Amino acid sequence: MYDLIEKKKHKSPLTEDEIRWMITEYTAGRVPDYQMSAMTMAIWFNGMTDEETTWLTMAMAESGEMLDLSSIPGTKVDKHSTGGIGDKTTLIVTPILAALNVPTAKMSGRGLGFTGGTVDKLESIPGVRSEFSEEEFLQIVREVGFIDAAQTKALAPADKLLYALRDVTATVDSIPLIASSIMSKKLAAGADRIVLDVKCGSGAFMGDFESARALADQMIRIGELAGRKVVAVISDMNQPLGHAVGNTVEVLEALEVLKGAGEERLRTLCLAIATEMLQLSDQARGSREEAEAAIKAAVSSGAAYEKFVEYVRAVGGDESYIRNAAEQIGQKQISNSGESQGQDTAQDIAQCMEGAFPVSSVQQEQPVYVYAEKEGYLSSCNNAEVGMTSVMLGAGREKKDDVIDMEAGILILKKLGDYVKKGEPLAVFYTKRMEMLPAAKERFLVAYEISPERPETVPVILEILGSSK
Amino acid sequence: MYDLIEKKKHKSPLTEDEIRWMITEYTAGRVPDYQMSAMTMAIWFNGMTDEETTWLTMAMAESGEMLDLSSIPGTKVDKHSTGGIGDKTTLIVTPILAALNVPTAKMSGRGLGFTGGTVDKLESIPGVRSEFSEEEFLQIVREVGFIDAAQTKALAPADKLLYALRDVTATVDSIPLIASSIMSKKLAAGADRIVLDVKCGSGAFMGDFESARALADQMIRIGELAGRKVVAVISDMNQPLGHAVGNTVEVLEALEVLKGAGEERLRTLCLAIATEMLQLSDQARGSREEAEAAIKAAVSSGAAYEKFVEYVRAVGGDESYIRNAAEQIGQKQISNSGESQGQDTAQDIAQCMEGAFPVSSVQQEQPVYVYAEKEGYLSSCNNAEVGMTSVMLGAGREKKDDVIDMEAGILILKKLGDYVKKGEPLAVFYTKRMEMLPAAKERFLVAYEISPERPETVPVILEILGSSK
Repeated sequence: MYDLIEKKKHKSPLTEDEIRWMITEYTAGRVPDYQMSAMTMAIWFNGMTDEETTWLTMAMAESGEMLDLSSIPGTKVDKHSTGGIGDKTTLIVTPILAALNVPTAKMSGRGLGFTGGTVDKLESIPGVRSEFSEEEFLQIVREVGFIDAAQTKALAPADKLLYALRDVTATVDSIPLIASSIMSKKLAAGADRIVLDVKCGSGAFMGDFESARALADQMIRIGELAGRKVVAVISDMNQPLGHAVGNTVEVLEALEVLKGAGEERLRTLCLAIATEMLQLSDQARGSREEAEAAIKAAVSSGAAYEKFVEYVRAVGGDESYIRNAAEQIGQKQISNSGESQGQDTAQDIAQCMEGAFPVSSVQQEQPVYVYAEKEGYLSSCNNAEVGMTSVMLGAGREKKDDVIDMEAGILILKKLGDYVKKGEPLAVFYTKRMEMLPAAKERFLVAYEISPERPETVPVILEILGSSK
Repeated sequence: MYDLIEKKKHKSPLTEDEIRWMITEYTAGRVPDYQMSAMTMAIWFNGMTDEETTWLTMAMAESGEMLDLSSIPGTKVDKHSTGGIGDKTTLIVTPILAALNVPTAKMSGRGLGFTGGTVDKLESIPGVRSEFSEEEFLQIVREVGFIDAAQTKALAPADKLLYALRDVTATVDSIPLIASSIMSKKLAAGADRIVLDVKCGSGAFMGDFESARALADQMIRIGELAGRKVVAVISDMNQPLGHAVGNTVEVLEALEVLKGAGEERLRTLCLAIATEMLQLSDQARGSREEAEAAIKAAVSSGAAYEKFVEYVRAVGGDESYIRNAAEQIGQKQISNSGESQGQDTAQDIAQCMEGAFPVSSVQQEQPVYVYAEKEGYLSSCNNAEVGMTSVMLGAGREKKDDVIDMEAGILILKKLGDYVKKGEPLAVFYTKRMEMLPAAKERFLVAYEISPERPETVPVILEILGSSK
């Protein structure tokens, strides 16, 4: 190991055998943490070649169980988001694809810090399970067409160990290490094709476009060298995606999109990701336009929504909970055309949370509104702070063992570029932690800047790149 | 600690408080090795400012006992060598200075790898001890005028821990870390003034002149910021110093110089170091020439030699052993003028080892000569390989716990630039490990290059620099 650190220090590339040896020995506890942390710091400074990064990815993928999806017919397309705030894309995209006969067998991590997790969101639905035996996992995909399961401990254990070490030694923010961490789990999970949603902005791992693009490029190159087709959608994370941040609230917002309505940027991103996934699959349409039309039809026909209900039922969830919620939301919807106004759709969810809908029974008596303190345009957002506000309210985890309050969360009524009057409501908070409200409100208000000039608005999709482009 | 690693990663200087906290917590075991190794790797890449390096030095010096030398009258001048092969300078210089009323209270590490240690060499003299209580330590310096003791465990424990960690994480070769390691021990050992012998070449820590100079500069700047006068002598280590490499053989060679003879480069270096030490002390002479004359007189009068004998007696050593050896060597000497030929002085020592002298009783029956395999000039030497050859013969340690064979070693009969005929003896090996001889001979012969062109010879002293220059 000493010699390998020495090589990396002097920017000599490691060989495939050296990387495989290092990962095997580290996972077995025979290379100590203090040598591995010196190595990761040397990698932080000197980087890795595409070959090294791919070998590291493969070695970590093969450090544990490799899922065999061959019993599921057709090309499996996986989807991965680098993590953000209000990102309920998976809940929307996977049932759409299942409705189009594209199977997805997806494993996700749980939320930590300001980043939420798909599995947590699903578990806000009464009865829903997200841990399965391999047999059960495969059977659900075969029967329903998709799964959103919690990542098993047996998947890429080397990555788990290495990530935990990087987390305490300030070596997380290294593009080859981030890329190999993500891709090792995707390869171990057995997908043939992968669409990556690389988030970029103040609520993402990658703060600026350049580093998001570098990470996307790196993962595409790993995919190419590992024989997988990979497409990356670089999307804006300088404000929460959609209106809802939390668990129950995000499921409601996902239902709204599955019912054909919803916030514009969220809908745009879901459409783009679903299109890329469809076009990578063996159900690919002749053109992008045809693919988009097929996806819109899967939503407007109700097929995608029914797939979602079918999934909830298959994993032990309460179907009537979903149908009730969808009905409540449906009544409030302006139209199914998709041209709904942002604020109105948010208000629909707010009313759904407040109203007769059973999920509201445990929340505080009054919804807590947060009001604008001055007039002007919402010009910027420190999105990580919005995420941390939701954690303060109980919607997320500060530490791994923290318990989430599923009904806690934030509905953000305004998007960047909106004009607000002083005293106009900006957001609704849901929480049982009444004592946290003053600090949470302040944190939220500080996160947004209000200024007299209309800001330039950033599109939600910044670039799409990949092996098939 | 995470934040400190993050700062260093991004090249932001650490504050004095941060460095002190880090060293205190690391020494107490509250900062784990895996964070400290990430930090040392970040330092390897980004370096440290002079202030940071000095704070690190002070924090490590103060992590354990600080020796108080105030009970010894006069200005104490310490001497430190960065380590080399055949470096018996301390054995020669400290008695010379004691003879001139300049006290030195020196602590040294033991030899490891290709680098020998002064304390090991002294312990080759029957009876000599090198571990003392503080009281005894101070008393010996007061009475004899010098001490060459083993470094105590209580001295700079933070440096010991950090060095051991750097040693297994490939972060030894960092100039601020090397400089602070050396200087922390010097400051903890209580010296007022310090002369550093910074070795440079194939048998040294610093392979090239530029890095040796950078290390020297760094230590001088630490000294200045810590209020100590420091002079650095940069000396050549591209071949062993003198003729002898080992323990008993090196003591014999030191005696030869103390008796006024000896190999030229060794004598030159000893004179230079002794001159710098004298001029830093409160016994300083008006000019360098006067200082050199005083040193030569201390040797030719026999005062320095008598100081050495007095020291051996004071630390429990066998005085008659030294007097016998010195007499044997004296009989072989061509003259006391110092203009002896290299090969002849080496042969003196060889004969001393072979002859009636008691140390030879345990060696193999025949001296083992190593002969030149072709004719030409000795043009270069891979000095670390010569050092490792002596370790193979038993004269050094591969691991910390290895036991040294005091009588093992090498007498090198030729210096770089000498012309040799095929079959002419190049060296004499002393060992009990007869089975190692073929491999040791080959290693030694491969270390030297013999070529038809006369090589340019490098002077033993490359530069002298320091706060008083």
